[in-house]
Amino acid sequence: MKTSIGNYLFTRLKQMGIGHVFGVPGDFTLQMLDQIEDVEGLAFVGNCNELNAAYAADGYARLNRIGAMITTYGVGDLSALCGVAGACAENVPLVFISGAPPLYAMEGHLRIHHSLAEGDFDNVMNSVREFTVAQTRLTPANAAFEIDRILRICWIERQPVFIQIPSNISYLMIDAPDHPLDLSTPQSDGESLKAAIALARQHLERARRPAALIDMDVDRTGYRDALVGLIEKYKIPYASFRSGKAILSERSGLFAGMYHGAASQPEIRDIIEKSDCLFVTAPSFVEASTLQFIDQMPAEMIISIRGHSATIGGEVFEGVMAEELINGLRDSLAEKPAPSQPVGSAASLAPVIEPEQALTQKRLWPILAEFFAKGDVILAENGTSNIALTDIRLPEGVSYISQMVWGSIGYSLPALLGTMMAAPDRRQILFIGDGSFQLTAQELSTILNKGLKPIIFLINNRGYTIERYIQGMHAAYNDVANWDYTGLPKILAPNVETFTASVKSEGELADSFKQCVSRDCASFIEIHLDPFDAPEPLKIFGPKTAELDYGPRRGKRR
Amino acid sequence: MKTSIGNYLFTRLKQMGIGHVFGVPGDFTLQMLDQIEDVEGLAFVGNCNELNAAYAADGYARLNRIGAMITTYGVGDLSALCGVAGACAENVPLVFISGAPPLYAMEGHLRIHHSLAEGDFDNVMNSVREFTVAQTRLTPANAAFEIDRILRICWIERQPVFIQIPSNISYLMIDAPDHPLDLSTPQSDGESLKAAIALARQHLERARRPAALIDMDVDRTGYRDALVGLIEKYKIPYASFRSGKAILSERSGLFAGMYHGAASQPEIRDIIEKSDCLFVTAPSFVEASTLQFIDQMPAEMIISIRGHSATIGGEVFEGVMAEELINGLRDSLAEKPAPSQPVGSAASLAPVIEPEQALTQKRLWPILAEFFAKGDVILAENGTSNIALTDIRLPEGVSYISQMVWGSIGYSLPALLGTMMAAPDRRQILFIGDGSFQLTAQELSTILNKGLKPIIFLINNRGYTIERYIQGMHAAYNDVANWDYTGLPKILAPNVETFTASVKSEGELADSFKQCVSRDCASFIEIHLDPFDAPEPLKIFGPKTAELDYGPRRGKRR
Repeated sequence: MKTSIGNYLFTRLKQMGIGHVFGVPGDFTLQMLDQIEDVEGLAFVGNCNELNAAYAADGYARLNRIGAMITTYGVGDLSALCGVAGACAENVPLVFISGAPPLYAMEGHLRIHHSLAEGDFDNVMNSVREFTVAQTRLTPANAAFEIDRILRICWIERQPVFIQIPSNISYLMIDAPDHPLDLSTPQSDGESLKAAIALARQHLERARRPAALIDMDVDRTGYRDALVGLIEKYKIPYASFRSGKAILSERSGLFAGMYHGAASQPEIRDIIEKSDCLFVTAPSFVEASTLQFIDQMPAEMIISIRGHSATIGGEVFEGVMAEELINGLRDSLAEKPAPSQPVGSAASLAPVIEPEQALTQKRLWPILAEFFAKGDVILAENGTSNIALTDIRLPEGVSYISQMVWGSIGYSLPALLGTMMAAPDRRQILFIGDGSFQLTAQELSTILNKGLKPIIFLINNRGYTIERYIQGMHAAYNDVANWDYTGLPKILAPNVETFTASVKSEGELADSFKQCVSRDCASFIEIHLDPFDAPEPLKIFGPKTAELDYGPRRGKRR
Repeated sequence: MKTSIGNYLFTRLKQMGIGHVFGVPGDFTLQMLDQIEDVEGLAFVGNCNELNAAYAADGYARLNRIGAMITTYGVGDLSALCGVAGACAENVPLVFISGAPPLYAMEGHLRIHHSLAEGDFDNVMNSVREFTVAQTRLTPANAAFEIDRILRICWIERQPVFIQIPSNISYLMIDAPDHPLDLSTPQSDGESLKAAIALARQHLERARRPAALIDMDVDRTGYRDALVGLIEKYKIPYASFRSGKAILSERSGLFAGMYHGAASQPEIRDIIEKSDCLFVTAPSFVEASTLQFIDQMPAEMIISIRGHSATIGGEVFEGVMAEELINGLRDSLAEKPAPSQPVGSAASLAPVIEPEQALTQKRLWPILAEFFAKGDVILAENGTSNIALTDIRLPEGVSYISQMVWGSIGYSLPALLGTMMAAPDRRQILFIGDGSFQLTAQELSTILNKGLKPIIFLINNRGYTIERYIQGMHAAYNDVANWDYTGLPKILAPNVETFTASVKSEGELADSFKQCVSRDCASFIEIHLDPFDAPEPLKIFGPKTAELDYGPRRGKRR
């Protein structure tokens, strides 16, 4: 069929299930924004800046399987890069589109604004290449097949890809395929799959203490349902990494709890590290998750599953797709009886609210946990929020979103814009500290002005408490200015009703939560906490991080 | 002498005249922040986010000859990259310091947060390399000489440099030189210099229409005084590129006006393009400045000067330093008499204020121009502000700051933080549009909470008017949310007095200006303008940019 390059690309996005493209307009993209609006069911969402757009697209992709964004050359691309790298680190498929200078200017090495003005048009691509799995610069000759190639890579590899479209070619007509984009999952090699299933089965049936350790690959590659099937049939106890939190039920009798390496509760550590057949799903080993540098799990026998390969007791099976392997294994096993008692300790009882009691980190999070309901989307910013919420057992069907590997503070507020656009009918609750909030605060404008209705808890502890526990407990550099946070919604969205509250006691907190769920508008609740108060795990995490980062201190300590 | 790596670096910064290091704390930098504070006369300035820190350091460097910033690995570095690239595009010397993961983690390719968690520690460096003139990763073995090497490159080349310090080595003691950092300018090759002076003199004495075209290199490389000496002695008429605005006096009788290539006023175009001996100072040819793609000036004979080389009538002289060449040339020439009348047209008369008259782009800027005083620092954001102010003749000694080549919107507000820290005793006035303001708005917090007292004019025309004139005059993507802007200072700095006003008429504008100069506090004045009103030059710039960007339109027009 005959179609324009822009129309072909944006129609393909729609076919992949993308309904919104985030970004900031720029002179090299304006015509493409028109073309986005021309595709039925696809809309451009203007952000306050490009980093926020990247975070929003990332949040969108986490609930929508894939997301997209568009920026203008150089200034927009580089402003967004930290967010794109975050998607790369956390296996979030993101179609990163850049409106580039006209093709004749790039091919002729002309001097142009939004560049270093010396005719080099490779530098931006080189930068972005480091944090994307595939890249292309479209031309009228390659557009039809390059668009399909790069979108398929994005879909299959679950990583960001980068597309430069020169500004002057998006309306040019090309011959393009009529058939829809091929989004089928590659199939396993038959022999390898059979062998892998047989070997895994053999290990599993011989094991006395099988266990599974869940990480984000289960969600990103999309074999959650298969894995649940296997685990439930064979009654395999499981724990989660921070970065795999709530992908599998936290209310199941098979859920042991969160695994934090050396900092885990002993009984959870036992289940994982003393397993004689441990399933691991592409664990994101980072020292921030395990508080130690390790390269593989310390269990006796490991079945390691990742996208399109598996390693079983040291034997590598390439071309074995996770879902097929797990389903095959499940089918080959006989069902086991349910264990007589739950694997993990019961969820701790909610504290009884003492209305006059000033809020503390110790009691705040268990109280908040009582408010969570089945199906909620919970976003937790890095810092005390994420550290405290990690160990809270969440209700069934909750999606828990946090950028734990890349760990760029400020991520979660723009990500909330994306998750709200992806799942507007789910209740969405964000927890973010004041220090993090200030990095990307303006995106609250977009959230409110779009009429979205999240519940936002701003933890005001006057700065970066997570860093206070690493270094500089009383240093001025860990303080941030104390804004009048609850006044901000009215400034950024004067014509939008927002429920705001500023709470210091348990009674005020409980009351504000009741009010916000009863109202049909966005809520913004400021929670005051002492700057030096911290969740218990942070008191371990902080000094341990300092030890890993700085080593034995030979300089003076503060 | 024995000193720690961190102390050595930060002491060197101080020796270069740096008093403030901008940035955002992160776990890999915290110890270094302590070390910054340990150097007398050096302080860390915490920004709301890293892009803002880069813009602030850039603004600081423009008034202080050099600036510095510090971020944490990966997340901080990439968040700042657009700002660093801007400094690279506009020849602003910036020492970009990154607190990196501990050396053993990088050398051992360990998996760590703030990275892609796969042991690759080259990707961030590769990205930053594209937009910095030199890079280093410090080790205890190389720190002493690498620090000196890279700082000297930054100083001499007038470009950003990148230093990674592993978090665990900044307190290690090293042997380092006692002598201060060598900041001397390289000397010309004697023979080449003599030959260049002789040839330039020959051309100049033969010329009937000598002229000079000023661009930012004059300021960045620092040969302004020399050039003024030559121009005044030989009475050479001159014009400025947008990006060289106000570096030389705009009130001199020799100043012809601004040169905009094909879009220049005919008499200015004549002076430049019909010159038979045109001095050019490393002109930043970008199409946004000249509205055409050109590679060299269309004059008959060109003396092109750039840092350490010159090209005279096509003959290249390497190793000839701009300042020495110009001084030598000045000394070799006989003084000429002053011209009988000024070269340029007289500054236009200020309009008489009509108090009830609604503000328009046509009358706003000439009225504002009357407020400017000798020695002001004027910052103009890209968009209508910069386009309109370009052609206003500024008083003597005014510094005009705008990011014209890189053109990243949102630059100017954080840059104002930097220029205020660099020159707190000068009156500083910022003009920024609402669309641009929203990208980096939170940095107003730092400006106000630091007790700085700029005058900020926010041009509220409900979106990106510069883009409306390029494409999508009535498209929703060019609109931004209408914030309650004058309420914002009180939210971001509740305990700081700020004068605010929201003005719609000429009378209100004049009144607000009178008030803000009489008060000893920061001022924030919102100016309401019609979204579709534009300065006259934008009505040429917009469609011409659309033609360059999109070519002849084959798709539908909007």
